[in-house]
Parts: sequence; structure tokens; C-alpha cells
Amino acid sequence: MIKVGIVGGTGYTGVELLRLLAMHPNVDLQVITSRSEAGGLVSDIYPSLRGHLDICFTEPDVDSLAQCDLVFFATPNGVAMKQVPELLSKGVKIIDLAADFRISDVKVWEKWYGLTHACPELLSEAVYGLPEINREKVKSCRLLANPGCYPTAVQLGFLPLLENNLVETNHLIADAKSGISGAGRQANVGTLFSETSGSFKAYAASGHRHLPEIKQGLNNMQSSPVGFTFVPHLLPMIRGIEATLYATLKADVSSDTTLEKIQEMYEARYKDEPFVDVMPLGSHPETRSVKGSNMCRIALHQQEDSDTIIILSVIDNLVKGAAGQAVHNMNLMFGLNETAGIEQIALMP
Amino acid sequence: MIKVGIVGGTGYTGVELLRLLAMHPNVDLQVITSRSEAGGLVSDIYPSLRGHLDICFTEPDVDSLAQCDLVFFATPNGVAMKQVPELLSKGVKIIDLAADFRISDVKVWEKWYGLTHACPELLSEAVYGLPEINREKVKSCRLLANPGCYPTAVQLGFLPLLENNLVETNHLIADAKSGISGAGRQANVGTLFSETSGSFKAYAASGHRHLPEIKQGLNNMQSSPVGFTFVPHLLPMIRGIEATLYATLKADVSSDTTLEKIQEMYEARYKDEPFVDVMPLGSHPETRSVKGSNMCRIALHQQEDSDTIIILSVIDNLVKGAAGQAVHNMNLMFGLNETAGIEQIALMP
Amino acid sequence: MIKVGIVGGTGYTGVELLRLLAMHPNVDLQVITSRSEAGGLVSDIYPSLRGHLDICFTEPDVDSLAQCDLVFFATPNGVAMKQVPELLSKGVKIIDLAADFRISDVKVWEKWYGLTHACPELLSEAVYGLPEINREKVKSCRLLANPGCYPTAVQLGFLPLLENNLVETNHLIADAKSGISGAGRQANVGTLFSETSGSFKAYAASGHRHLPEIKQGLNNMQSSPVGFTFVPHLLPMIRGIEATLYATLKADVSSDTTLEKIQEMYEARYKDEPFVDVMPLGSHPETRSVKGSNMCRIALHQQEDSDTIIILSVIDNLVKGAAGQAVHNMNLMFGLNETAGIEQIALMP
Amino acid sequence: MIKVGIVGGTGYTGVELLRLLAMHPNVDLQVITSRSEAGGLVSDIYPSLRGHLDICFTEPDVDSLAQCDLVFFATPNGVAMKQVPELLSKGVKIIDLAADFRISDVKVWEKWYGLTHACPELLSEAVYGLPEINREKVKSCRLLANPGCYPTAVQLGFLPLLENNLVETNHLIADAKSGISGAGRQANVGTLFSETSGSFKAYAASGHRHLPEIKQGLNNMQSSPVGFTFVPHLLPMIRGIEATLYATLKADVSSDTTLEKIQEMYEARYKDEPFVDVMPLGSHPETRSVKGSNMCRIALHQQEDSDTIIILSVIDNLVKGAAGQAVHNMNLMFGLNETAGIEQIALMP
Repeated sequence: MIKVGIVGGTGYTGVELLRLLAMHPNVDLQVITSRSEAGGLVSDIYPSLRGHLDICFTEPDVDSLAQCDLVFFATPNGVAMKQVPELLSKGVKIIDLAADFRISDVKVWEKWYGLTHACPELLSEAVYGLPEINREKVKSCRLLANPGCYPTAVQLGFLPLLENNLVETNHLIADAKSGISGAGRQANVGTLFSETSGSFKAYAASGHRHLPEIKQGLNNMQSSPVGFTFVPHLLPMIRGIEATLYATLKADVSSDTTLEKIQEMYEARYKDEPFVDVMPLGSHPETRSVKGSNMCRIALHQQEDSDTIIILSVIDNLVKGAAGQAVHNMNLMFGLNETAGIEQIALMP
Repeated sequence: MIKVGIVGGTGYTGVELLRLLAMHPNVDLQVITSRSEAGGLVSDIYPSLRGHLDICFTEPDVDSLAQCDLVFFATPNGVAMKQVPELLSKGVKIIDLAADFRISDVKVWEKWYGLTHACPELLSEAVYGLPEINREKVKSCRLLANPGCYPTAVQLGFLPLLENNLVETNHLIADAKSGISGAGRQANVGTLFSETSGSFKAYAASGHRHLPEIKQGLNNMQSSPVGFTFVPHLLPMIRGIEATLYATLKADVSSDTTLEKIQEMYEARYKDEPFVDVMPLGSHPETRSVKGSNMCRIALHQQEDSDTIIILSVIDNLVKGAAGQAVHNMNLMFGLNETAGIEQIALMP
Repeated sequence: MIKVGIVGGTGYTGVELLRLLAMHPNVDLQVITSRSEAGGLVSDIYPSLRGHLDICFTEPDVDSLAQCDLVFFATPNGVAMKQVPELLSKGVKIIDLAADFRISDVKVWEKWYGLTHACPELLSEAVYGLPEINREKVKSCRLLANPGCYPTAVQLGFLPLLENNLVETNHLIADAKSGISGAGRQANVGTLFSETSGSFKAYAASGHRHLPEIKQGLNNMQSSPVGFTFVPHLLPMIRGIEATLYATLKADVSSDTTLEKIQEMYEARYKDEPFVDVMPLGSHPETRSVKGSNMCRIALHQQEDSDTIIILSVIDNLVKGAAGQAVHNMNLMFGLNETAGIEQIALMP
Repeated sequence: MIKVGIVGGTGYTGVELLRLLAMHPNVDLQVITSRSEAGGLVSDIYPSLRGHLDICFTEPDVDSLAQCDLVFFATPNGVAMKQVPELLSKGVKIIDLAADFRISDVKVWEKWYGLTHACPELLSEAVYGLPEINREKVKSCRLLANPGCYPTAVQLGFLPLLENNLVETNHLIADAKSGISGAGRQANVGTLFSETSGSFKAYAASGHRHLPEIKQGLNNMQSSPVGFTFVPHLLPMIRGIEATLYATLKADVSSDTTLEKIQEMYEARYKDEPFVDVMPLGSHPETRSVKGSNMCRIALHQQEDSDTIIILSVIDNLVKGAAGQAVHNMNLMFGLNETAGIEQIALMP
């Protein structure tokens, strides 16, 4: 059994981690910290856990965390970087579900997050935990940066297209939509039910923090620097991300590369991936088909007389986009069955 | 491994059974029939099952069903009663998720369901599958009537109060609310998104089919015939039932029986039940705390200077109110671990 | 044109008042105050008003309010009572949409609201603004207490039944459900989209502030003190209240008073009321049938062999339950066409 | 008063027309036909209209329609074209809310709609009723093709950009999202609440009927044939369309044409339009800001180091995208106040 700790377990990512870890066959959850809720039962905040988890929140404390084999940080950006160096030095492995270690260029990170990085020397060591790209590195790392939710859906959607050099990279577009749980559990007028239900809008259309993270990933997939436009939108629902991606076929490939051939490339690329499902041509993946599950479902389209490839990609932002992917990475880091604890079937309807 | 068949697997109860059975450690799903979808992959209708279940729908066929140890009927009312006698005669056990065997008085059944019963002789043999009341009978039965969704929430809420003879039984009231999945997957204008979202209403307020089923159950809990009013309502959400129950304390008990004492009775009655959670006094159970899980959560209230006891009871109508309770009954009927395959934690948020 | 001021216009009641007053043919909106938003355009917070209303929020200021013929208070409980005496003394009429003047017994008010009342001497003068009961008093008053949302739906539902002495008054029950806008626009975890969508629960089941308000109203409808149970619930939708009311026919009336006769009494009682619609027997009013409108729709039911009368009553909590009723009262207080500015048809679907 | 008839008033477009026309100061609604509902009160299907509209549905009948000055067709595609020639010949003006007269090239129409056009000779006469483009033609026409919902939002968003020749036209992209009411009121499994709530998906990603309609409009705005990709999505909400549009600045304009300059062009283009609101730079229009109103709100964005212009455009699909725009066109065709009957403020929250 792996001894696990969680820092900051009161948010949605935290409770989703708890849901998964409480049923994980190889995990012994030792400690969960929360400054605001210390002393209280986890199941008082999340009655869904009554009968499954009897643990209380404790004050953040390095010594108790240091007893763990692995600590998850489900904290706001900027928290993990202050505690990670000490924990690493005590031999604890780390999975950070926030953004502190996702971007390797510290200047870019500091610009987008408005903070001075507390341990820039660790950025080169941190492994970006998209198993479909970095599986081997994940297996041997001690500091893992769990990808953002949008970046997961967008990168998995573009990956085979870019790896195969099929499209122009100067005008890639991702029109992405997320359920409201992505905004977290903070008390905010903007995410009240009465402000968001029955309505839809774009937000951060002039630049969102996940833009540089995705751009870094797309650049790593091939050799030319990408031009990339990313517009996130807020859906009136709790869970789920859908990304509709647009890319123009290169002039020299468009004549002989049919959509069927591209479909084959996608299927080949992901055939051994337990958590990526390339659906048949013509499919329209629904976010509910992955609700509560760790799956990413992808489908391809092309319109008549058009050289634009359309990729549809859906995930559950709290599972494949956060806690589920973190557990997947944990499984890899500790040599467990890769799918242990994250084989849940989506809740549908 | 138990060989299992499902008749009528395209509705919401059917797909929920599939979700649970696909992960059940002791079940081998052999056959699933659907006249309308025969030949098609189950996962084409329910993409959530892609990768988990590769089975196709087949035409209804007694011979293939007769190979099974157990057949679930997830069919409209009136279908199971025509096929059950033959299957029973071939040694197959039956769990009917519809209403064909729920009411022991055939005249009452025929009045409310508008059909002539095809095998009234089996009504006395059928066991009403509320494990909290009939556990031992369930274990040894071969024909099980799985309770309705409202009846499950309402009966579990009233049970300790009636068993202890604390309240007047002539004016029991259940004001119940259900998510829309309870109306099934038929194409109906009345359950379109645009007809139901952002709105709420009572329905069948002059008499709903679950009224006689609940009344029969309440009558069985104690000796005097009950006067019972039941008003169901349609909630703008997919899953979940909440029942708010009202009962008047008997004049001779009201002075010395405090709510605290009643709370103790509820806790004692349900302390060994894996799927009933009596919450602390003052709690307000939310339907989301049981979404996707087989739990029923109950809380008690009493207002100042009032002799009315208020019971709040929530379940997921598709799990504890249908497929989950059916699996629970299957576990009992086959001597399996009682909670096998139905230990999922609610999906929250 | 009536010169109107609004104190506290940033909440949902405030913006609904703005929507109605901006189109009202007899109103000149002079001033709207908000401490937190002073200086900002109203339409910056509520873009729906862009092009319809060019006014800015101003700091609360007695002198500018004193220029008005009428001031609406759309403030939290306890604010209006501090400013009303001075404004009244300057000849300004007042409509308070909060609870400060709704309960005539100051002790009861102070117990439920946890505040010391600032001007108890005005309580006897304040008119409770349910036009269907107090139309003539409303016309001549200068201080109007606009009813609560639940109290409006519940009192209109019970009124003809109690006025005609048809039912036992010791066990009246109101099971009421409200959309989330009733909780206001404050930043609260409990009313976040991700905490409330797709879920349902009772709240304040041991006692809600609207209980004494309703009880006072029911007591005023007839001579015997009522026993009344009120359980509010939170619906996963923005607007709308549905109240399902239960009352037992008196033993001496139940034999000869059919539901048809009671229906006639309801129709007779409300036949001249522009904002109460008694629907045909067997109807199930939906909250969406009044969304955005000032209408209350009511329907009656009775179940077989039962002496319980069931009344279904729906309103839009922000219109008939707040801003619309306030405008109705304004129309009466100033001798305008009673329905001016509040004749909108519900938005459906 | 204009005598008005409606053919096919039972769908969502029909009831929205009724809501608007019932309050329109210059309209006398004479006849509303429905084969399936003939003889029934309109307000029995739509209780929201109780007290506002006492008219019954009648069988479709040319003679009674011929008494009208204007007939609206709120019918499925392919119905209007069969009746329009006769009504025109009797001097009745026509507004078709379906697609029969929207596309001037009959071959394109027949390909996308799978029907043989019944009166292709009228296609050149029909005026495409986007008042912001065709106001003068609308005023003098007798046959008006009311634009589709998506085409309205998309064309108004692109219009100033294309008229000013600022962008490359070979890779225009519209990622559009619509509420479910756009799918109509037919009984369909795909638009059930339980199939769509809490979920999101693209549909018709390989080609949607509004694609050729939009393409025709974009081609008419400037001289070079456009390359245009259009992906519609289904939102879990009733009303509202949001279109996020992407266009690449031409190389020769990108250096000196700032977003501020483009904003000015948009404001200038729409400054006299009563139903287009260009919001300040940096805005993110929400669909709820136009719910129930005839407004289109637009905002512009550009991301750092990018030559891609992002336009956000929102409408209510049933108002500006259907019934409201139809009333706007009626006002123009009959010389009425252009905004009569369609000045409602959006319902928010």
C-alpha cells in the first residue's frame, strides 16, 4: 500500500481525488490538510463520502506529510512551489495538480501567473504528466506537473495531426468549452447558479493562462513554432470539457491525405492508450459519455471542399483533466497497474 | 460467475444495470435483448460503455435467456408477466424492475395499470425486494419484484416511525420530487429539455401508480390501515428523488417522545444496513450526495410547538430506486457479498 | 410621471425592479443607490439593461431620495427600518421589499430576524401588500410591506379555503420549492452552480423566517389559531416557486362539499383579480408558465377516498413574489392603472 | 391594425410569435392554424398565454388566411413554398420563418434540404430579411425570407470585418453554440432532458444546413468567394446562441489596423441599428443578456502576437434568431415604428 497525503482537499479537485483514492486498491490515505477546515470530518463537507472515508482535515504540517510516499497538491497556484523542495528532500514524491511546475520557461510562467517562482531550479526536473506523451519519464520521476484541464483535451486532440506534420502550424485554433466546476469552489458572484445557469459566454478571450501551457505542448510535438488561438467558454453544467479544434491541411498533403487516412493515424497513435478513445468517423463525442470517467474521446470531421480538419475532443475536467490523470500518473510512478482505481464507467444519463 | 440476461436494455434502467453489471466481480453478462435495437452494439447507443462492454443487442428469445441463472426485466409494465412463468419453469431466477409483481392484490394492480394480469397465481410467491424489510425472503426467492423508485424513498423514510407506532396513520403525507430520468427514455414532448428545464411542477396529483404500492407497504409496517396522500413532482434535473414526509405524533406519545429519541430509533433500525444512512439531526440530505450511488440518506426535523414529524429521504432513482437495488437483491439471492458491485461513491459535484 | 428612487439596486430584486420600471409608462426613475457600486453604470453590472437605462448608481443619500414621490427598498433585512422614518417625515412614500415591516408583532419579528427593530411604532401603520387581501388599505397607505415570496404563493393558495372555513386549521402543511434566485446575489459557496445544479434538497426544515409571516396571514384569514408546517426546498433553476399545500376537510363539510364546489369558490374569490389564475380542475401549474410574469396560477386536487385537499400554487419569486407585486402596489398607491408595467407574458419556453 | 395570420403555431417559433404579437400595439391576430391542434385553445398548449390570448387553433384554410394582410409561416421547411404563391396572388404579404426562400440558388437549396422546390420562380423576388443589410428591400417586399438563427448571429458578427476587406476570406471559421429550443418541439429522444442536460457536444460537424445560407451571406458582403467552416454545438440550456468567429487579418492590413480601429468600424456600422449592440473592447457577451429580447450583442478580441480577430456574437435564437426578427421585418414592411412590440428587456437573471 502506498501512503498518500493530500494538501488542500476542500476544492473540487480535492474531493474528486478523495472519491478515486478511497476506492483505490493500493492506496492508504494518511493525511489530508486544510487550513480552513482543520479538525472537521471530510465527510461533513462532502456527505457523498459518508461511510466511505472517516478521515479528518488536519493543519498543514510538513512532518506528517513527510511520512507519506506521495503527496498530491490540490492547492491554488503558488502554494506547492513553496513546500515541494522540502518534501522532495525528505524523499517524498510529488504530484502537483496546480500549475506551478507545468511551464518550463520561468519567465513565461511568472508573466502569466503574476508570481515569482519559489524554486525555478526544479522546473527542468518536473515531468509534464500527460502519459500519452511522457509515459516513460513519468515512471521514473519524483516531481510531476499534472496538466491543466483544457491543455489535456486540446493536446490529445492535436497530437497525431502535429506529430505527422499534416497541418499548417501558424493558425491553429482551439475553441474550448468547460463546465463550471473548472472555476473551483470559491465563493464568487460570477459562478453562482443564478449567474450562469441557462447562459453561455466566452471568457478570457484575449488570453487565458492555459494558452502558454498548450503552446509549449504543441511546440514540443513538432519543429516549427506554432501560432495558436485559444478561446475558452463557460458551459451551464458542472463537469466536462469539449474542445473543437481547427487546423488547415498543408497544401502539399491536402490532395492525397484523406480524412480516412488521418483517422487511421489517430487510431494507430492511440491504440494502446487505455484512456483515449478514437471514435468512428462521423461521431460527435458528448461530454456526458466521459462524466466521472478518465476517458478522452476524440472524433474527426472535414466539411465539403474544405482543407480544414476539425477535431472534437471531450474529457471530464475533474477526472482526465485533473484528479483521474493524477491517479494515472501515480500508478505509473509507483509501478502499479496503470488503470487501477480509475476504471469507472461514465455516469450516463 | 453468475450468468445474467437482461430483457429490454435500452432504457435508463437498462443502461444503469449495464454500468453496474459490467464492473460486477461475480457476473457474466450473457445476453441483452431489445427488439428495436437487435444486432446493434450496446455501446453505439451508450458510448459511455465503449471499451467496457462489447456485447450486441439480440432479439428476445426464450432459449438464450433460459441459459442464464438470472434474468432482469427492465421492460415497460406488462411485459415481464408474459415471459416469467416459462423462464421460472426452466429454473431461471427473475428480477423484475417493472411493476408486474409489486402489488399482491391483483384487482388493485389491474385497476391502476389498466391491464389484465397474465399470471396472478405468481403474485403471492413474488417477494417485494426492499432488502431492509424483506432480506431473508429475498435470499430464498426465485421471483423478485424490485420496488418502484418513489416507494423506496418513501417507505424507508416512514419505516421506523410506523414500526414503532409513533404517529397517526390516517393522514400520512409524502411530497415527493423526482428527476426526469424517472420518466424513461421514450420520445415525449413532455420530457423534452425545452419543456422541463428551468421549470417545476406537480404531476398526477390526483393519483399516481406508486400510491397503491406505497400504501401496501405502509399497511404492512403496522396494523391499522393508513390514510396516505402522495404528490409527485418533476424536478429539472436527471437523477435523484427527494421525499419530504409528514406525520403527526399520536397524542399519547407526543409529550415524552422527543425528536432525539426518534432519531435514536432510526439509527438503531438502520445501523446494520449498508445502504441507509441516517444523518445527524438538523441535516438536509441533498440528492447529489447519492448521485450514482446505492445509498438512501434520511434526516429528521420537527418545528417549534409542532406535533408534526418531518422526514427527508433521498435516493438516486436509477440506483437505489431501480438498478442498484436490483443488483443488491441479486447479491442476496445468490449468496454473494451483499455490497458487491454497488459500492460506488456518489459523483459530487 | 411618478418620481421613483431605489435603495439597493444591485441584487436580483433590484434588477427585476429596474426591468419593470424602465418600461413603466408612468415612472421616472430618478435615483438608484448602492454603496458598493456608486459611480458605476447600472448597465455595466446588468448588460441586459444596455440601451434601456443609462442611470448610474449613487451613494445612498437622504436628500436625493427625498426628492422622490416613492422609494423602493430592495435591501437586506434591517436596512429599510433605519431610513424609513426620515423619508416618511419628508413626505416620501415607501415600499419595502425586505421583511422589516411584514410582521406586526415586534417580538416575533425580533426573534426570527435576530435584530432590534428600529421603528416598532411604524409596524401598526405599515400595510401588508398582498393586493388580493388588502387592496383598499394599499391604496391609501404611505408605508407598504411587500410580502415575501413563499408567503405570497402559500397565502394565495390557502385563502379561499380558509375564508370559507372548510378545513381543519391545526395541521396545515406547505411543502414549498424555490428557484435559487431567492437566495440573492451574494457570493456564497452554497449557491454556486456546482453546488446546486442537478441536485435538490430541503433547507431550514426546522424553521424558516417565512413561517411566522405566513402564520400571521393564515391567522388573519379566519378565527382559530393555525397549526402550520412549512418546509422550503431549493430547486436547481433560477426563477419560480411552487407550493404544494395540504389541508384536511372538516368532518362536517367533507361529505357534501365536493372538489367541484371548492373550485367554484376559488374561481369566485379570484374572478376580478388580474394576477391570480385559477386553472381548471386537474391542472398542474408549471413555474415556467409564470416566468417573468406577475401571475399566480393555482389548481386543486383531491385523491380517491381522501379528505385531504391539495392546492398547487406557482409564482415567479422575483415578480409576483417581489418586484412585480411591488409595482402592483405602487400602481394602487398612486391611483394608476392597476396592471400598468406588469402585463408581461411569461417567457416560455 | 394589421390583420395577421400564423400558419403552424404550435412550435417554439410559433409561441414566441404569439408572445410578441399578443402585446403588439398594431396587430390584430386573426387566425392561427394547426392541423394537429385544430379546435383547441392556444392557451391550453401554452398556459403562459392564459388571460392574454383567447384564440383557438383552426384547420389550415386558404380563405381565412387570405383575409389577412400578412401571414407568418412558422412551419417545417417545405410547407410554406406550397401555399405562398396562392396567398401572394390574393394580395397577402408573407414572412416565412422556415428556410424555403432563404437561398437564392435553387440547386443549392434542393441539395441541402432534400426537396424539390415548389416555386423556384419566387426565389429571386424573396428578400432575405436581415434588416441590418437589407432594410430598404424589406420595406417594399411582399415575400420575406426570415434568416436562420445561426446565420443571424454569424453574419452580424462578420459584417463590418468583411465589408471593410480587412481579413482573408479563405479560412473564416464560426464555432457556434445553440440552446436546445433551436431543435424545435418535436418528440425526439435526442432532445430529451435526460439526454442533453449536463452535457455538451458538437453536431453536424461535417456540414449543417445553415452553412450554405451563411456562405451566401458572406459572399454578398464582399467580392471574393469565401472559404468558410461552420461547426454548431448543442448547449444544455433552452434559449440563446453564441458564435465565436475567427478571421485572419490580411497581411497588408495587420500592421496598422489595430483592434481599436476595428472596434470603431463596428460601432460606426451599427450605431443606428436598434438591435445590434457593439460592446466595449474586452467584453464577453453572455447569452442571458439577450434572453427574451431582440438584441444582438457583439464584442471583439485579439490575442497577443496574433493576427487572428475573434468576434463574439450572441442572440436569443427564438427572438432575434426567429420571431423577433420576423416582427422587426413586419414593422418595416408595413411602415410601423421599427421597434414596436419588440422592445422587451432581457430576462436576467
